Amino acid sequence: MQMNDMILVSVDDHIIEPPTVFANALPKKWVDRAPRLVYDPKSKLQIWTWEGGITLTPFINAVVTLPRDEWGFDPSTIAEMRPGCYDVDARIRDMDANGILASMCFPSFAGMAGTFFGKAEDKELAYACLQAYNDWHLDEWCGRYPGRFIPLPVGVIWDPELAAKEVRRVARKGATAITFCEETEALGYPSIHDGAWDPLFAACVDEGVMLAIHIGSALSGMPGRDSWPMDVRVTLPCWNSLSCAANFLWCKSLQKFPDLRIALSEGGTSWIPGFLDRMERHYDNQKWTGADLGGLTPTEMFRRHFLACFICDPSGLLLRDRIGIDNIAYEVDYPHSDCTFPSSPEELWEHVELAKLDDQEIYKIGWENACRWLRFDPFAHVPRERATVGALRARAADVDLRTRSRAEYKKEYEAAHGAIS
Amino acid sequence: MQMNDMILVSVDDHIIEPPTVFANALPKKWVDRAPRLVYDPKSKLQIWTWEGGITLTPFINAVVTLPRDEWGFDPSTIAEMRPGCYDVDARIRDMDANGILASMCFPSFAGMAGTFFGKAEDKELAYACLQAYNDWHLDEWCGRYPGRFIPLPVGVIWDPELAAKEVRRVARKGATAITFCEETEALGYPSIHDGAWDPLFAACVDEGVMLAIHIGSALSGMPGRDSWPMDVRVTLPCWNSLSCAANFLWCKSLQKFPDLRIALSEGGTSWIPGFLDRMERHYDNQKWTGADLGGLTPTEMFRRHFLACFICDPSGLLLRDRIGIDNIAYEVDYPHSDCTFPSSPEELWEHVELAKLDDQEIYKIGWENACRWLRFDPFAHVPRERATVGALRARAADVDLRTRSRAEYKKEYEAAHGAIS
Repeated sequence: MQMNDMILVSVDDHIIEPPTVFANALPKKWVDRAPRLVYDPKSKLQIWTWEGGITLTPFINAVVTLPRDEWGFDPSTIAEMRPGCYDVDARIRDMDANGILASMCFPSFAGMAGTFFGKAEDKELAYACLQAYNDWHLDEWCGRYPGRFIPLPVGVIWDPELAAKEVRRVARKGATAITFCEETEALGYPSIHDGAWDPLFAACVDEGVMLAIHIGSALSGMPGRDSWPMDVRVTLPCWNSLSCAANFLWCKSLQKFPDLRIALSEGGTSWIPGFLDRMERHYDNQKWTGADLGGLTPTEMFRRHFLACFICDPSGLLLRDRIGIDNIAYEVDYPHSDCTFPSSPEELWEHVELAKLDDQEIYKIGWENACRWLRFDPFAHVPRERATVGALRARAADVDLRTRSRAEYKKEYEAAHGAIS
Repeated sequence: MQMNDMILVSVDDHIIEPPTVFANALPKKWVDRAPRLVYDPKSKLQIWTWEGGITLTPFINAVVTLPRDEWGFDPSTIAEMRPGCYDVDARIRDMDANGILASMCFPSFAGMAGTFFGKAEDKELAYACLQAYNDWHLDEWCGRYPGRFIPLPVGVIWDPELAAKEVRRVARKGATAITFCEETEALGYPSIHDGAWDPLFAACVDEGVMLAIHIGSALSGMPGRDSWPMDVRVTLPCWNSLSCAANFLWCKSLQKFPDLRIALSEGGTSWIPGFLDRMERHYDNQKWTGADLGGLTPTEMFRRHFLACFICDPSGLLLRDRIGIDNIAYEVDYPHSDCTFPSSPEELWEHVELAKLDDQEIYKIGWENACRWLRFDPFAHVPRERATVGALRARAADVDLRTRSRAEYKKEYEAAHGAIS
């Protein structure tokens, strides 16, 4: 196989939500109370605001193709970023240019686990807006390009029964995944350890919906401290998936729901071999805890329930056999600073060669695992011969991939849409 | 090489301190105020107590050769454990029986970073007792068997200047390592990031003394939650070394002291390849943080400063080249539940074969790295031909390695010493 023959599905990218999220799907009754993106002329920032509070960083880390010295400071308005961040037509062209067949996109202002919606006191309003958000995601973002997005509606984080209801609702609309959080308790919601979330897990199993848990969705696991250098605070959250996986592995609910599937998003894979070594030895050795995995080993439990993914992870690929070749997927992380756009295939290929993956392994990690776990048929709308890196890129030769400053993007935006005010 | 030809130095074991710790080395002035091990007939527990408070778990996890159903509940008195836990003569015989040439031993009641001493309000008393503790460790524990122990006095955790003074004092007595903690701030002491600990680091560099940082010395990094299953709470602390290493890696003091050496004790090694991948990519990619490693890469920095160690770590051994073959040491963890006693050579050999280590690599990991980093000459007192696993074990054929219950150990203890009261 050559690099251009790969087929790539990314299970972790991000949408910067445009101001029109609640324009179409929200019942009239709630329109005046919906979250809205407003511009504050004093601070020159756009923020999402409603009676549940504000999101000061709606454009978090949307730095793709910005010059590196502009990273670390989020764009102040939606005008100051690459249109692929928020405009689905532009996103598709960027996916083509990067050789990506399909993408699963997490929210931005809504929070990686939809925590924004949980903050309104009026839970009827909260759920109405969450549903409208999900309908926008399903119908207007994913629906506009069939076969190019794996839908990822946001889950209800404040109420397990309502979370189950929403799973059943979005499943009827074709969703096969929904967001959940690394540690509900860290957000003040019930623990997964006391059975409180079993209604959600049952609905996911019934409907064939996978939980997608993104690092940073609870900021537990590896908490930072203000005194720590930025380099510590932005690198450690990658290992939050480890803490999350440990909690699920030893959670009794996982045995109650053998078909529950969980995506550990942006958590990387290189920690998994050592994690499994450790859990195997612990389970063999420390019988006093009374842990009982119902006849399975920790490795078997992990492989039954978890799909891990990576952006750049040479050490994980080298030990793919100890992780489980069927449990690894690929991600781009567009439009964040860790993403490999527009050279994702090149960066992946370097590590594919280092780890000497064979063709079958490249397919599994590139798209087959993602599509099987997420019940996504990548060739239903795009014929296979047009789905490869080479074929997608061939039709996107005119996409401008130059580095441009926030000011340049802003100028282009204002020329097309007028100034944000 | 055969298993019996290995030479093994363990850089992480533990002493259960006997009641005589302060019997000889403490100046008379302080004797009445020294910590003492007392028996409470009501709770039937022995505890260390003094005006700085109590340690309820002085025998923490001292379970070696106890039946597995007695693990998880610490012995209540010193009588209920294998004598090798607290008796240096018995320890040496256990080391022989396990094929271990030399051992570096961490404290128990004193805390992995000597935190017990920091709790007394009278800091003059605290330092007097800490010195006496260290003198006992150096003279009575390590000194009784020259060439069999790498001395590890405890550091002063409450005062960086005093910590430096103690480093200089113990170095004069032959110490080449001293305890430090994973995260001083988590204990309420100054951060490593503001230069507060530079006097300690300077003393360590001047005197050639290595900092030994054991997991759990600050319980930061991966904090547990009471609602989490025990299986989560006892497995996650292994990854505390990752958070500690990240903080040191990006700490400006590490560049100020290029010769500062740090042992990450009981942290394992399997997380290191992914950690270095992540830090390399971060440093290449995220220039906005302004991080500057002074011309070195994160991997070069790691290899210059850190010695990691493992009990059982097949995935780490498989990727030893990505960690750095000169940065890995071996440990037994006697007498804790994770230790491999009395089959340490067999368990190590299984993974040596899995990872296909060559003879040079087996020597490096088994003893050479530990001895070089810790400036310990293993053959100064034990000729090399008598230092191998096979040679040590040959003279310990009469050591009783059977599983015995706490009650059986207690009976033996009482027959020899009388009942604890």
